[in-house]
Amino acid sequence: MNAAQSAALRDVLTAQPIAALGTLHDGRPAVSMAPYAALADGSGLVVHVSALASHTRDMLSSPAVSLLIMAPPLAGVMPQATARVAIEGTATQCERSSEGYVAARGAYLERFPQSEGFFDLGDFSLFVIRPTSARFVGGFAQAVTVSAESLAVVLAEISQAP
Amino acid sequence: MNAAQSAALRDVLTAQPIAALGTLHDGRPAVSMAPYAALADGSGLVVHVSALASHTRDMLSSPAVSLLIMAPPLAGVMPQATARVAIEGTATQCERSSEGYVAARGAYLERFPQSEGFFDLGDFSLFVIRPTSARFVGGFAQAVTVSAESLAVVLAEISQAP
Repeated sequence: MNAAQSAALRDVLTAQPIAALGTLHDGRPAVSMAPYAALADGSGLVVHVSALASHTRDMLSSPAVSLLIMAPPLAGVMPQATARVAIEGTATQCERSSEGYVAARGAYLERFPQSEGFFDLGDFSLFVIRPTSARFVGGFAQAVTVSAESLAVVLAEISQAP
Repeated sequence: MNAAQSAALRDVLTAQPIAALGTLHDGRPAVSMAPYAALADGSGLVVHVSALASHTRDMLSSPAVSLLIMAPPLAGVMPQATARVAIEGTATQCERSSEGYVAARGAYLERFPQSEGFFDLGDFSLFVIRPTSARFVGGFAQAVTVSAESLAVVLAEISQAP
């Protein structure tokens, strides 16, 4: 991934705080909506999910997940050319007592300050998704593989964005 | 699903022509971008995919798919309250020689007229996704199960939208 691709990926992640989260549900793929934030060190993505939601049970029983993050629609851009990144990773529930909890909660609330009230609800919990591989498509015939290391650099940048 | 929910679902499907397509990839969930159209009779969704893309191979080997269609971002709406519909279905490749091909191609090109050139490329093919169940979330605590029959009515409506 070159500097221009890295900047384009950063723009997509900054502009779009909502991912489509793919989980394994009874052996089938299931896609659900998941607002996400990035850990400050770029090592993972953070989602905050309800125990009542099936994606939460899915991640507990099968931690392999896939996230798709698409640029918001842009006038004059063909839908097929919409920039997007697909991230494969492993989801782990982040318990309140765990070492990474404060950092994960802080990262999530920095992006979604209005969500603070949900942290008082007992049935919500944080999951951290550690990327294993990613593919960024900046437009037509502009697909590039993104290493976990390169993705971490970009994620750290967006976590520090104002 | 009542009339107001049906209208809200129609609005999401009209405003957002791009789905997040979940497929089963080597036993893991994978999510990719897929512009979609609706068949005129509402009985299915149509996607046009490249043989080079892994979602195409995924659908051929495992037809159970999941689609998430999210409303475009709206100022003042919390990301978590974004309206969206998740559709579970079965994907079938629609060969040029098959009975439904002309209707599927017509539906796709009505929504994406600029894509006509892709039909001349040998490695692209149409898939029809027949919904088996769906869930529409219009906002906070506004989730409703959508029967395949109710969804078909809405899909038929959007296929006829200007």
